[in-house]
Amino acid sequence: MTPHRLDIVVDFADCDPARIVFYPRYFEWFDRSTERMFRARGLPWAEMFPSYKMAGVALVDATASFMGPARFGDRITIESWVGEWRSKVFVVEHRIHNDGRIIVEGREVRVWGLRDPKDPEGLKAGVIPPEVIARFRD
Amino acid sequence: MTPHRLDIVVDFADCDPARIVFYPRYFEWFDRSTERMFRARGLPWAEMFPSYKMAGVALVDATASFMGPARFGDRITIESWVGEWRSKVFVVEHRIHNDGRIIVEGREVRVWGLRDPKDPEGLKAGVIPPEVIARFRD
Amino acid sequence: MTPHRLDIVVDFADCDPARIVFYPRYFEWFDRSTERMFRARGLPWAEMFPSYKMAGVALVDATASFMGPARFGDRITIESWVGEWRSKVFVVEHRIHNDGRIIVEGREVRVWGLRDPKDPEGLKAGVIPPEVIARFRD
Amino acid sequence: MTPHRLDIVVDFADCDPARIVFYPRYFEWFDRSTERMFRARGLPWAEMFPSYKMAGVALVDATASFMGPARFGDRITIESWVGEWRSKVFVVEHRIHNDGRIIVEGREVRVWGLRDPKDPEGLKAGVIPPEVIARFRD
Repeated sequence: MTPHRLDIVVDFADCDPARIVFYPRYFEWFDRSTERMFRARGLPWAEMFPSYKMAGVALVDATASFMGPARFGDRITIESWVGEWRSKVFVVEHRIHNDGRIIVEGREVRVWGLRDPKDPEGLKAGVIPPEVIARFRD
Repeated sequence: MTPHRLDIVVDFADCDPARIVFYPRYFEWFDRSTERMFRARGLPWAEMFPSYKMAGVALVDATASFMGPARFGDRITIESWVGEWRSKVFVVEHRIHNDGRIIVEGREVRVWGLRDPKDPEGLKAGVIPPEVIARFRD
Repeated sequence: MTPHRLDIVVDFADCDPARIVFYPRYFEWFDRSTERMFRARGLPWAEMFPSYKMAGVALVDATASFMGPARFGDRITIESWVGEWRSKVFVVEHRIHNDGRIIVEGREVRVWGLRDPKDPEGLKAGVIPPEVIARFRD
Repeated sequence: MTPHRLDIVVDFADCDPARIVFYPRYFEWFDRSTERMFRARGLPWAEMFPSYKMAGVALVDATASFMGPARFGDRITIESWVGEWRSKVFVVEHRIHNDGRIIVEGREVRVWGLRDPKDPEGLKAGVIPPEVIARFRD
């Protein structure tokens, strides 16, 4: 699939006393980028979650490798794509560019999380509907 | 080494619309726990960074596996320890317990980041001083 | 009423490139402190919200005055108390101390927010139950 | 002056268990919008702070009134402008629109914060240079 692209202006608000992006912020951006990718494919979470009786697309694993910094004032781009669809789980790959250089690579493994009828606060893995997967074909 | 323990009360502020902890928050807690572990070993960052001419202990890699949720009102504990000291890099392991169950396991690979005299905004890897490593022996 | 006290260790994670607490974090702490105050009075939000059919205690107004900084490594204390109970609204006052000095004073005006039966995503103001107010008498 | 406009897509990442924007996030957006307004006027903080020997534009007061919610998927706009220039202090006004309705009004009172030569971690108020103020005339 064609990667989704999200442009971000790094602000003072994103940086820590070392004057670089505070690293958990990259995972927040991964989450935003995954949500925007679904939205761009016609699956906004605010509609997708209730229509599929979902609690969310909860995380199983999250990883990131940091190859270079970003500082406030930088304009960075996150490219995101689904690297793999399994039965109940999917893998989102992320790559962040800063001024022509790859600075972060990351991966989120996410579960298709249905509401659990037995537990109002719970979540159980469900099979990802084929029409959802079909939306991510180019 | 004996793991450092940090008790956290999960607040509404930590949770997302799925009513569980927003996952990047776990990485923020890893960062806090690493800092507190140094502090508990007599190395508060506010003193350690200037005295060793450091910009910080920047991330090379960060990973987490999520085995269960935490919700607002839960009291969780993060255990953290240095799993490995290399020449310029060290590995911090994190394990989060919620009500007797391990819910998150994570790892941060961090570099001993000296200020770069050639670049006021830069950072270069330095050899970790032996007296720092010695502080983490029990 | 006796103010609720919450001790906070300021971490690197809380600070911005000016090396002081990033100011929106103080409002996050106000929110945490309000929630903890309710919990300490026997009203944990995770139980109070469903039992009173509430969406939350949404904000009407929030203000803060900043008289001094806090830096990572500082140990600060937030004192919080309900300054006023109106019919459907209450006012939470916050005062933050750092090393014997008041550094922040703030106020949150919050509404008792019931779920709106006509709108699953909505919220409507409800009368604060007298037994809730009674819990905050000393 | 013509207000600066910043369009924001509200994400899942911005919302709390009540499924609306977690209120301290609005102050984070005020901070971002203030920084972007300076950038749009030719004063990016990454250059302005060192060139004027500043630690930052620290907060004296911050206030917000909340008139309506925003939810994930909403597209909101923050309008920001300087309402008043005093000798060492300036006032930034913010107004947030959601779907044609004003949902938040806020104000930040900020000080022109110079580095304090007597205290490397300190900040002292300085007179705002007239050429800075001139940049905000239309």
